Amino acid sequence: MRIGLYPGTFDPITNGHTDIIGRAVKLVDKLVIGVARNTGKGPTFTLEERVEMIVEQTAHLGNIEVRPFSSLLMHFAEEIGASVIIRGLRAVADFEYEFQMTAMNQQLNREIETVFLMADPRHQAIASRLVKEIAQLGGSIRPFVAESVEKRLLAKVRS
Amino acid sequence: MRIGLYPGTFDPITNGHTDIIGRAVKLVDKLVIGVARNTGKGPTFTLEERVEMIVEQTAHLGNIEVRPFSSLLMHFAEEIGASVIIRGLRAVADFEYEFQMTAMNQQLNREIETVFLMADPRHQAIASRLVKEIAQLGGSIRPFVAESVEKRLLAKVRS
Amino acid sequence: MRIGLYPGTFDPITNGHTDIIGRAVKLVDKLVIGVARNTGKGPTFTLEERVEMIVEQTAHLGNIEVRPFSSLLMHFAEEIGASVIIRGLRAVADFEYEFQMTAMNQQLNREIETVFLMADPRHQAIASRLVKEIAQLGGSIRPFVAESVEKRLLAKVRS
Amino acid sequence: MRIGLYPGTFDPITNGHTDIIGRAVKLVDKLVIGVARNTGKGPTFTLEERVEMIVEQTAHLGNIEVRPFSSLLMHFAEEIGASVIIRGLRAVADFEYEFQMTAMNQQLNREIETVFLMADPRHQAIASRLVKEIAQLGGSIRPFVAESVEKRLLAKVRS
Amino acid sequence: MRIGLYPGTFDPITNGHTDIIGRAVKLVDKLVIGVARNTGKGPTFTLEERVEMIVEQTAHLGNIEVRPFSSLLMHFAEEIGASVIIRGLRAVADFEYEFQMTAMNQQLNREIETVFLMADPRHQAIASRLVKEIAQLGGSIRPFVAESVEKRLLAKVRS
Amino acid sequence: MRIGLYPGTFDPITNGHTDIIGRAVKLVDKLVIGVARNTGKGPTFTLEERVEMIVEQTAHLGNIEVRPFSSLLMHFAEEIGASVIIRGLRAVADFEYEFQMTAMNQQLNREIETVFLMADPRHQAIASRLVKEIAQLGGSIRPFVAESVEKRLLAKVRS
Repeated sequence: MRIGLYPGTFDPITNGHTDIIGRAVKLVDKLVIGVARNTGKGPTFTLEERVEMIVEQTAHLGNIEVRPFSSLLMHFAEEIGASVIIRGLRAVADFEYEFQMTAMNQQLNREIETVFLMADPRHQAIASRLVKEIAQLGGSIRPFVAESVEKRLLAKVRS
Repeated sequence: MRIGLYPGTFDPITNGHTDIIGRAVKLVDKLVIGVARNTGKGPTFTLEERVEMIVEQTAHLGNIEVRPFSSLLMHFAEEIGASVIIRGLRAVADFEYEFQMTAMNQQLNREIETVFLMADPRHQAIASRLVKEIAQLGGSIRPFVAESVEKRLLAKVRS
Repeated sequence: MRIGLYPGTFDPITNGHTDIIGRAVKLVDKLVIGVARNTGKGPTFTLEERVEMIVEQTAHLGNIEVRPFSSLLMHFAEEIGASVIIRGLRAVADFEYEFQMTAMNQQLNREIETVFLMADPRHQAIASRLVKEIAQLGGSIRPFVAESVEKRLLAKVRS
Repeated sequence: MRIGLYPGTFDPITNGHTDIIGRAVKLVDKLVIGVARNTGKGPTFTLEERVEMIVEQTAHLGNIEVRPFSSLLMHFAEEIGASVIIRGLRAVADFEYEFQMTAMNQQLNREIETVFLMADPRHQAIASRLVKEIAQLGGSIRPFVAESVEKRLLAKVRS
Repeated sequence: MRIGLYPGTFDPITNGHTDIIGRAVKLVDKLVIGVARNTGKGPTFTLEERVEMIVEQTAHLGNIEVRPFSSLLMHFAEEIGASVIIRGLRAVADFEYEFQMTAMNQQLNREIETVFLMADPRHQAIASRLVKEIAQLGGSIRPFVAESVEKRLLAKVRS
Repeated sequence: MRIGLYPGTFDPITNGHTDIIGRAVKLVDKLVIGVARNTGKGPTFTLEERVEMIVEQTAHLGNIEVRPFSSLLMHFAEEIGASVIIRGLRAVADFEYEFQMTAMNQQLNREIETVFLMADPRHQAIASRLVKEIAQLGGSIRPFVAESVEKRLLAKVRS
């Protein structure tokens, strides 16, 4: 069985993430969505909230498991038996960062491949950070996230 | 009447900004320079100081208005009746960030166009952040900002 | 009156070009679409055909003129009284080439500004060259060009 | 069964290609290496020679088939039942070209995903074109291609 | 005598830095490694520790001096009589930042040239920040830093 | 004695090349300007003309030698005893191409270092190819090349 790992912060899950998940799921027999527990960025949503939103958005897909992790990405991949790490590419800046990470990760475990997927052009510009900024300033975030995520985010920024 | 909006933090206004303003002013009947009130970066100058310096540097241009704003960029553009948002491009990194912002802004209001201008090559490398670093370490910032801005910045970093 | 010039080879006009034209037309009082006569690339369509297709695709827009040109871009801009040159940006590679051209053009005439527009993300990937390759190999080009352009291109590649 | 397609000109196959093939083979149940028959570039090796060299270099891998193709990439992918197209990424320039191709290909068939792999840093700089230039000028190409490919290329450039 | 300056934070020195130093030392008669005292990033190692690690790693090279500095880079270069500043390039993002810095530095002193070197592809992906993240999460950093640096870093992250 | 090699086609030498030469000459004891004899591009000027123009433009600099070459760059560098190859960087596209070349050249001879210099921002946009296009279409090339080069180029394009 081929297991894939799609890691991220998902703070919150956007239509861009959902697009990548819909593609990734076809490449492997089981897709683990790894939700990074602690990040330097100081997440807006708690780990539980982030996991919940992903579970909601991916409930219609069969072979998905959502799991938090706080260890090194490559160690988590080994732990869950993943042979493939999946990353979304949006822009050149992404590309370079990913490239650097991938090259270092290859030094840690040569058996686990990293593959890159490109989101649909309509979703490529969506960044969780910008979505939160727009919400904070009272702009509509309806084109960028699912309805239930929008509700949670509006509740969060108003509190 | 075609109204343009040139938004930024202007902390402080540099020769690069002045170059873009001198070009932008020719593209529209009225140019509003929008000074972002609060920014994540923690500005060195107060909003009032930043506005004052821009007013000083653009006093010789007829059709300019300098206005602070704290709302969402697209909402502020709608409020002032702008049909064009003007952005300066310096480098590939700028390009990608602007690209992402523009694509998201297009989702918020399709009637407002974003246009990009390139500064003169001599001014393209000027970044407010680097100007402040140089001033802080006692370097000459005379090639990068106007004389009155230089005085204010030196007073600021010495205090 | 503010006159804009949108230059290109338009071999043939794609949905990406039409998108940029629809945006550019709002920035100026009159938009001249300049069709470059001779290009190193060896165009697939004759100059007349390329002009015809643009006229067809822009007939619904009021303030547009389609004109062939074979002189230096900046000379043609001067000749038609343009104060703005309009260019579409799709990718970093575009950006760098345009940047170099713009910096050299600024040396030739500082009064004419070049502004850049970004096409809708859905149209950004469309390149005339790739459209022709797909047509040549029998693929559907319906998502990339107007119906009448598609017919002409299919007739051309079959002959 | 998950079938992958790794398309290219392979003129000739380099260590960079071999690296990507070694990774790709683990992602799918069967990997078809698609060798593009006619290319604008005017290949140095005949289609037969290019196929032969790939067969030699991949003989030790079980689930590989090498097939020439002259149709549209997406049509060939459909023909062989591929659900995944595999591409190697080396640099930003690659990234942008691939990005454009992928966005257009998604319009042609949304069911076939394109995934990107990064070669080992040591192999990323290898370009078939440069390998041929070095061989032509008498430089050693031993670090870039397999021994048998080196022999063939030297024979070719000397004739 | 041609004096070169290779400035950085070196927090800690990685195999990528050591690679660049080994190359830079051949370009000048004396190479000063300038260790920036205070950086916005908040270094993991004290200035003394960072200097010590560099001295250890470069002990086998004859014409090297390791010196801390807290002044403006160009002032420090003038102070030590350097005619060349040496920078390593890894990626496009580096390139753009360096480009901006270099253009501003040229305004400060036109006599001091900045030259760029590229590390061996195997070392290009190594970033001190990522090395520290991997160490913090318990991953092996042996491929990225010298043995003695590894020991110090492990001691540091465990404390 | 440290010998540097600055290779190129120089078809013709521009102000951008002259800028790099003026910087490179300070880095080495002797600078050899290597003029590539045959290039795929089909040069506008003969090898003799190209060499002559460089000699004219660099006559005021003491430690320069202009030499044609038709062998592999690294072989020519070895032949003249160069320990440093000097390249100018203008843009990201340059950077990637150079990066690829440098990585392959390092495989051919690890003792010869490649260093990169950035031209003054005012000269960065100058490309020989664009200069020739402008001259061909009757535009002024005075800001981009020396007066004597301008004369030769005008004579060439008029014939």
